[in-house]
Amino acid sequence: MTGLFLSFEGIDGSGKSTQARRLASHLEDLGRDVVLTREPGGSPGAEEIRRLVLEGNPDRWSAETELLLFTAARRDHLERLIRPAVARGAVVISDRFADSTRVYQGVTRGDLRGTVDALHDAIIGVEPDRTFLIDIDPEVGLHRALARRGQEERFESFGVEMQQQMRSAFLDLAEQSPERFVVIDGNRDADSIARDVIAALP
Amino acid sequence: MTGLFLSFEGIDGSGKSTQARRLASHLEDLGRDVVLTREPGGSPGAEEIRRLVLEGNPDRWSAETELLLFTAARRDHLERLIRPAVARGAVVISDRFADSTRVYQGVTRGDLRGTVDALHDAIIGVEPDRTFLIDIDPEVGLHRALARRGQEERFESFGVEMQQQMRSAFLDLAEQSPERFVVIDGNRDADSIARDVIAALP
Ligand SMILES: Nc1ncnc2c1ncn2[C@@H]1O[C@H](COP(=O)(O)OP(=O)(O)OP(=O)(O)O)[C@@H](O)[C@H]1O
Ligand SMILES: Nc1ncnc2c1ncn2[C@@H]1O[C@H](COP(=O)(O)OP(=O)(O)OP(=O)(O)O)[C@@H](O)[C@H]1O
Ligand SMILES: [Mg+2]
Ligand SMILES: [Mg+2]
Repeated sequence: MTGLFLSFEGIDGSGKSTQARRLASHLEDLGRDVVLTREPGGSPGAEEIRRLVLEGNPDRWSAETELLLFTAARRDHLERLIRPAVARGAVVISDRFADSTRVYQGVTRGDLRGTVDALHDAIIGVEPDRTFLIDIDPEVGLHRALARRGQEERFESFGVEMQQQMRSAFLDLAEQSPERFVVIDGNRDADSIARDVIAALP
Repeated sequence: MTGLFLSFEGIDGSGKSTQARRLASHLEDLGRDVVLTREPGGSPGAEEIRRLVLEGNPDRWSAETELLLFTAARRDHLERLIRPAVARGAVVISDRFADSTRVYQGVTRGDLRGTVDALHDAIIGVEPDRTFLIDIDPEVGLHRALARRGQEERFESFGVEMQQQMRSAFLDLAEQSPERFVVIDGNRDADSIARDVIAALP
């Protein structure tokens, strides 16, 4: 079996984790060796770095330091989990990968986009074989969240306007790498989205 | 008062910490605002990253991940401690800085030297105003260590041969940046060395 590296991307609450899990079960049902993972984190070392970055005062780290820490976590995740799994023939499904960094830094600290790319080229150097961008209208995400248990702080903390900017930034990335990205309309029921994901597997 | 950023470099046991402390007291006696610090570490965040890197199994992190983590620590140290102190007119004395990374990676993973330089340029971008390279013969360091309480494991862990390689690598850096480095013969008594350090202040 040839290994595969897949990622799910999209704004907060777009359905990445839901769809990553569904794809994982589908492929397991077909008898594939599947590794479902996530970023930031995904390997023991990367999860420790994630905790170091995310716990405590939010302005404990500057954007530059945070970018280095997350790139260190990604490197660990890549060399300790993703690469060995792909090498043995597994399908690795990562809930977020480098595109989330590009979009987040692009929107919050546009001046760092060059540094983000330079770090990626120097230290990471790989892209997923396919990236599923679950594209939703932030208002739809907000309504989904409001329909459930008090998850609205997630939206309030960033704001719908920022979600709109991130959505555009994800769509721009997809346009720049059409051979890698598949943009899937996420404003629908989970079954329809899951069908489109499966149809777009490499 | 104009701020100043000074660093001490040299192989293990060369006398960096001894001389950094002595210079700090000398300048304090002259009434200067002095900040004595060290790497890896030096600021609360950087010290946390230092602990994350140095505790636990030594091959817990790859050379690449470790390099990113130490660069993150240096960035934090620079922006939270060094820059503000220099800006208010203090003399910052750092026991090791970027040259230690250059030398260590150069000797242990020569193939990463390009990455070390690229990261430094992208994320750190500054050098000390003056770097004191305390240059000793590793055999002298070994004898000093043996003359004291069982510190010889420090040398055994790296080996005299590796200390020789690091010594040459430090001397090469000094040759490449003669306007910044002062090479001081560290194979002498601490008073003579301290006098030479003071004479070479910018
Ligand atoms: N197609 C869908 N229709 C309706 N609700 C959905 C759909 N997909 C997911 N949800 C629900 O929306 C919420 C967010 O989904 P999910 O956690 O999968 O998104 P996410 O992109 O992983 O979010 P986050 O960015 O916060 O990790 C969950 O409560 C989930 O059950
Ligand atoms: N000029 C000197 N002559 C003799 N002994 C010295 C001299 N300078 C320092 N020492 C002693 O040598 C040992 C190493 O010195 P010191 O800790 O200052 O070196 P260092 O470069 O900071 O070492 P490390 O790389 O381990 O941090 C100490 O025991 C110190 O007291
Ligand atoms: Mg999720
Ligand atoms: Mg020391």
